[in-house]
Amino acid sequence: MDIYSASIKYHKKLKGKLQVVPKAKIKTHADLSLAYTPGVAQPCREIAADHQKAYDYTIKGNMVAVVTDGSAVLGLGNLGALAALPVMEGKAVLFKEFADVDAFPICIDTQEPRELTRCIRDIAPVFGGINLEDIAAPRCFIVENALQDLGIPVFHDDQHGTAVVLYAALINAAKVVRKEVRTLKVVISGAGAAGTAVAKMIAPHVRDVLVIDRGGILHDGREALNEFKMELARLTNKDQQDGQLSDAIEGADVFIGLSVGGVLKPQMIKTMAKNPIVFALANPVPEIFPRDSMRAGAAVVATGRSDFPNQVNNVLVFPGIFRGALDARAPRITQEMKLAAVHALASMVKTPTKDKILPDPLDKKVAQAIAAAVKKAAK
Amino acid sequence: MDIYSASIKYHKKLKGKLQVVPKAKIKTHADLSLAYTPGVAQPCREIAADHQKAYDYTIKGNMVAVVTDGSAVLGLGNLGALAALPVMEGKAVLFKEFADVDAFPICIDTQEPRELTRCIRDIAPVFGGINLEDIAAPRCFIVENALQDLGIPVFHDDQHGTAVVLYAALINAAKVVRKEVRTLKVVISGAGAAGTAVAKMIAPHVRDVLVIDRGGILHDGREALNEFKMELARLTNKDQQDGQLSDAIEGADVFIGLSVGGVLKPQMIKTMAKNPIVFALANPVPEIFPRDSMRAGAAVVATGRSDFPNQVNNVLVFPGIFRGALDARAPRITQEMKLAAVHALASMVKTPTKDKILPDPLDKKVAQAIAAAVKKAAK
Repeated sequence: MDIYSASIKYHKKLKGKLQVVPKAKIKTHADLSLAYTPGVAQPCREIAADHQKAYDYTIKGNMVAVVTDGSAVLGLGNLGALAALPVMEGKAVLFKEFADVDAFPICIDTQEPRELTRCIRDIAPVFGGINLEDIAAPRCFIVENALQDLGIPVFHDDQHGTAVVLYAALINAAKVVRKEVRTLKVVISGAGAAGTAVAKMIAPHVRDVLVIDRGGILHDGREALNEFKMELARLTNKDQQDGQLSDAIEGADVFIGLSVGGVLKPQMIKTMAKNPIVFALANPVPEIFPRDSMRAGAAVVATGRSDFPNQVNNVLVFPGIFRGALDARAPRITQEMKLAAVHALASMVKTPTKDKILPDPLDKKVAQAIAAAVKKAAK
Repeated sequence: MDIYSASIKYHKKLKGKLQVVPKAKIKTHADLSLAYTPGVAQPCREIAADHQKAYDYTIKGNMVAVVTDGSAVLGLGNLGALAALPVMEGKAVLFKEFADVDAFPICIDTQEPRELTRCIRDIAPVFGGINLEDIAAPRCFIVENALQDLGIPVFHDDQHGTAVVLYAALINAAKVVRKEVRTLKVVISGAGAAGTAVAKMIAPHVRDVLVIDRGGILHDGREALNEFKMELARLTNKDQQDGQLSDAIEGADVFIGLSVGGVLKPQMIKTMAKNPIVFALANPVPEIFPRDSMRAGAAVVATGRSDFPNQVNNVLVFPGIFRGALDARAPRITQEMKLAAVHALASMVKTPTKDKILPDPLDKKVAQAIAAAVKKAAK
């Protein structure tokens, strides 16, 4: 049975991957009086007088909303809110399994950015954090930016989770090829949510970053760039170079693919600097397959897949980041907290090798280490 | 320790009464591939092509949102969305315990009816039903009416749950005093959410209903009635009688209090018809205490409290109604379904007596019986 048939069978059997379970049973009239009326009146009154007490008396302090509008479901495109639900449930499962964070899927039936923003703001009281998921760019940037004053962390995993894991992977890959991170020239294929966030994360720490979208290399002079790509063009490409991927890649130390399968050709790798690093993360078909990469001279390769070494998987990051942020009662997730996560993650591999630059995605110690680092950075 | 101190201790210990738990663990890479990427893509694709499949592959078919705006929290008034959370959690606990319905609290941080309606519409994809809760009248009427086309049941428990349990209580109380329900003259004190729904539920089945609010008896000619009270005035009070509670109660067979403590005086009961039925449901202080009621001649009394006989408690109703509606995949909860619930509930007490017109609220067989009747009525 292939993975898709097996997954349908699995989902059909479970009828949803989550259940909402009481922490205490209702067996007696006394239980009913404590959990519900009349006893429950007192926690309500105290929370009305002091909102911070919601963290003591309710689920808020350990509850994250996994929120989507269904506009960019996995690599499948705009399937709509309802069809995104299996992914959001899966994400909630991972939150609980890896970091004991309770998480609940919220699939919002609008793709109008202001209505989306307002809806998230309206439902925020129950939650201690908002994990945005599978929302297409540039809408995801608008929504995330608009919600940073909410008083609870609002974090778009497709952007920042990916950026954290990639930067950690880059630090360890650089160790393997014995180059200094600050000397690296990095080419990023893809200027969507992930490509944008990765570029912003690593640009201050490397020699140069070039970002390529369907129209070629992003630079200041290119026409018809939206405000987000314009900002990216200014932050990257120090020489404001023009051209295509084949131009950008010449002499580059690192290729990071967050775009579509097959776009990186072996001959392009041959034009890269010595010991090139190739992260080809398009799923399920990477920008170049590892064997072709290695044959063309790549020194370290990574993909998004679990059937090759060096899987770049956000599950290494988001459970720990939210665990740390919730434990700190942080009002937002700052750049310092993300960088703390990067270094905690990178340091989980004591001696990186070309086949091991990241921990196994199932290693549950990773979330603990990241949570501790993020909590500390939040203070 | 009093009930309020005990409840604070209980809530502090639990830090929220719910948790979100995976139905299957993630232990291996194969688990991860089935529950999350890449396997999860297939349920997403199939749901995008056929929305009904969400009932096979996701939590939707067994998940109810317990939704409030915090405008009428218990009898405490407008405490706001966050302070309502302990009640919504308690309600979710009861859904799971009594009918194995997964339920999740949604506290919406707006009290503007159109925004509230839009927010509920926006978050509906994840849910198989919406239980409105602790929303003040008349907003609750506006929101509930506006959402009946949503395709899933939208049910305001404070209205319809109360109406169902009260009508069942009335049927059994009438048996105790050997009167026919269709001959009863009923006086309802309170024209809020519950009073309105009870009046609408029983008016077609009894001789007459008079509804009293702070301005006196509702009748067609009264000034400054909002559209909801105007509708109620037309549906009730066949002789369009004017006056106060003391006028309405003369010769009445039944008093139903859904208002405030202490408003029914013993001398008023003395003016009622023979063997009067007195349901004094204000909480925690009823419209009249049972002892005073009985002394003044009441034949059957009920309250909302667990420390007197005949507790009128919605927990007898809402778990079973949603269980039945979800099992039937009903797009809404019809009058037929509510009436089926009434008769199923009434018939759970084989031989009603003055001290037992309703089952014990902790009797979990009630939810099953109501669910079966509601499911059948939904077909």
